[in-house]
Amino acid sequence: MRKLVLVLALLPALAIAQKEDSIFIRKIANNILVNGRAYEQLRYLTKKIGGRLAGSPQMTMAENWGLTTLKESGADNVFFQECMVPHWVRGGEDKAAVIDVAGKKQKRSLDVLALGNSLGTGKKGLTGEVIAVASYDELENRKAEVKGKIVFYNYPFNPTYIRPGQAYGESGVYRRNGPSRAAKYGAVGVIVRSLTEATDNNPHTGATLYNDSFPKIPAVAVGLKDAEYLFKTCKENKIVKVSLTTYGHFLPDAVGHNVIAELKGTDQNEFITVGGHLDSWDINEGAHDDGTGIVQTMEVLRVLKALNYKPKKTIRFVLFANEENGLRGGQKYAEQAKVNKEKHVFALESDNGGFTPRGFSFTVSEAGLQKIKQWQPLLQTYGGTDFIQGGGGADITPLNSNFNTPVAQLLPDNQRYFDLHHARSDVFEQVNKRELFLGAINMAALIYLVDKYGL
Amino acid sequence: MRKLVLVLALLPALAIAQKEDSIFIRKIANNILVNGRAYEQLRYLTKKIGGRLAGSPQMTMAENWGLTTLKESGADNVFFQECMVPHWVRGGEDKAAVIDVAGKKQKRSLDVLALGNSLGTGKKGLTGEVIAVASYDELENRKAEVKGKIVFYNYPFNPTYIRPGQAYGESGVYRRNGPSRAAKYGAVGVIVRSLTEATDNNPHTGATLYNDSFPKIPAVAVGLKDAEYLFKTCKENKIVKVSLTTYGHFLPDAVGHNVIAELKGTDQNEFITVGGHLDSWDINEGAHDDGTGIVQTMEVLRVLKALNYKPKKTIRFVLFANEENGLRGGQKYAEQAKVNKEKHVFALESDNGGFTPRGFSFTVSEAGLQKIKQWQPLLQTYGGTDFIQGGGGADITPLNSNFNTPVAQLLPDNQRYFDLHHARSDVFEQVNKRELFLGAINMAALIYLVDKYGL
Repeated sequence: MRKLVLVLALLPALAIAQKEDSIFIRKIANNILVNGRAYEQLRYLTKKIGGRLAGSPQMTMAENWGLTTLKESGADNVFFQECMVPHWVRGGEDKAAVIDVAGKKQKRSLDVLALGNSLGTGKKGLTGEVIAVASYDELENRKAEVKGKIVFYNYPFNPTYIRPGQAYGESGVYRRNGPSRAAKYGAVGVIVRSLTEATDNNPHTGATLYNDSFPKIPAVAVGLKDAEYLFKTCKENKIVKVSLTTYGHFLPDAVGHNVIAELKGTDQNEFITVGGHLDSWDINEGAHDDGTGIVQTMEVLRVLKALNYKPKKTIRFVLFANEENGLRGGQKYAEQAKVNKEKHVFALESDNGGFTPRGFSFTVSEAGLQKIKQWQPLLQTYGGTDFIQGGGGADITPLNSNFNTPVAQLLPDNQRYFDLHHARSDVFEQVNKRELFLGAINMAALIYLVDKYGL
Repeated sequence: MRKLVLVLALLPALAIAQKEDSIFIRKIANNILVNGRAYEQLRYLTKKIGGRLAGSPQMTMAENWGLTTLKESGADNVFFQECMVPHWVRGGEDKAAVIDVAGKKQKRSLDVLALGNSLGTGKKGLTGEVIAVASYDELENRKAEVKGKIVFYNYPFNPTYIRPGQAYGESGVYRRNGPSRAAKYGAVGVIVRSLTEATDNNPHTGATLYNDSFPKIPAVAVGLKDAEYLFKTCKENKIVKVSLTTYGHFLPDAVGHNVIAELKGTDQNEFITVGGHLDSWDINEGAHDDGTGIVQTMEVLRVLKALNYKPKKTIRFVLFANEENGLRGGQKYAEQAKVNKEKHVFALESDNGGFTPRGFSFTVSEAGLQKIKQWQPLLQTYGGTDFIQGGGGADITPLNSNFNTPVAQLLPDNQRYFDLHHARSDVFEQVNKRELFLGAINMAALIYLVDKYGL
């Protein structure tokens, strides 16, 4: 009861603070909804620069554009943070075809994309018999049959998870580890069913990670129509042969940069970071992944400056390098924080697509989460209702690992994300202006609240 | 305190019931996410039948398809409920152009669509000077200038409402009443800025309602690029002339039908209705408006039957006729309920687009709403978190008005709805399978809970 009395005594002060916060967040919202630049910035990034894989000329164009745009958004200072990035190139047009079904020659093309970081067959290509497996369990049961063959993993993207990120986590092991796991048993190539439920036939690329203990065999993704056809054909026929031609290879590491802007706080050595990743795959415009996170980050800067907000902490706006196939940008940022003895009190990333926000996921103490949940009434008007434990973007995870910095990720309603994620269809037209803006509003509001009240 | 003890005593029974409900709703979800047919049904409705305005041949095709598909979905019985529907036709290609700016002849085409129910200029067309107004206030101030001119309403779709339906409500009066309001002052034609924030130039049609006291003048909508151009041009130049050619007219009323399926309840004269509207505008595929509501309705039937659910009340699945430009289907349904002395205990409509569900809006007693809110923990997993007072679809409003039947509408996250609403861009490709399914899951769960526990 005593606690209750105390709480009741504090209520008027709390109510005034909440009202003030509510008014400021409404200003953030109105300003972004009316004056927001994120959508037009995204149009430029996707249409004028396009795919911008680490090491590519487009990466450099995007970095320069990022620096200029952050400056224009009102930063106190902007700078490049150099980091060496891997330089994988696709090297040519990925091709595959079914060329023999049970002894009958044919040529049915498959629409494929080499997995990122995978090594190509080269011009001469690779021809092999396919062994189609539904899962690693089936691979293990049939490991004696694998030698000299192309393993086709047809593990489906589970539709019954309500949050599709769970299905991505589950199926993702086949793309990430499948090639080496097949190579262990003597496979000469790998085909992976794309990590999607999309009913089109677009293949979805993404990074694979070779295990150095086994041969680094070529690996491609196929879309769902081809996957269904190939699996059925393999299950109905004793021998199915496929030809693969891919050209993936690494060039020497390249000079890349995190692009960083600051709004200086009254306490200049305490940092709050907000960011997304500037790189994308080469075969699309990197609109939802992660152009939207980039322009939302810029929008947070623009609106705080436009509203003349004077932060307590220094707020960093970071366009991270090389999330897709190396994470060198995120690692560099955390290393440099250590070198410079910076105190990082919070970091937020947007890298789940620019869809309507539902809230945030956090990696934070239970006490911190309880504090954040008190802000829910301030954010729910703008879609932010879910505040859950467990999350934070890939680029800011090193901050959490190294310094125990609380980290968070914007949780958009990403039901349609995996229809286009890492596929050619991740283009500007798939992004809705209002959904993009609402995400930026929630991000700006959270940064404001963390800056004002700490965590 | 006594109340609290009572509540505590009831908790175990409540917990068991909630667990049972939670399991059943999970079965609904899994069944729809794995076996759902709504997406493929929508593909058929939009791609094979297409736009299906009241009175059109496509209306009849859609009715027949609806009857067959509801039968296949497992209904105990299906039937047509005849109702006469208005038969407005566009009659030709709508055209407009700026032909004179301050005495300089030119021909800059404007992309326009005649408003539904509007009467055309006929082949000879209409040429007139444009008076551009930002609002009704400006119209009133300048009413002396209106005579003989074409009034252009450029009232913007307010971006600062977080729920875009509010902006639609606010701007919608210009489309619905603007032509007659201008005709009252002697205008000869009307151009309306489309009810959208879309950055493309698509015009958005929709019904207009003439006031019989004034001349029924031609009226068209323009997309935002043309609207911005025209408004600027008018404000900068004394005289701007436009030509309009439209062909809209009414044919005699046609025979249309509500398409109805039933799952018989143990109490056969108590009814729960779930539905959407089968008609759409002529210039698009009527995907989100309201093909998605139609196939979600079918999905609710299919899943309840597949799970062998035996309802207490008779559940009606209704594909309403003529929502867009007459509401004759909804009116007929309520009239017939009266004739047959049916007791309607609840009605639910989905007509806000097939996007990820956020909850439901209701027109129900406060006690009813409190009861519904207790079900929130059962629905929130599937996206249903918001249960708000004030809402219900147009087709079921007559049930509420005539019998005080509690009504509800699915509340999807419709941030992107007005980009395509009543525009050519409302096509199948704009619908996401998972978002569509999640809506159907929430609808089926709500119907199940209302049937089981009453309201």
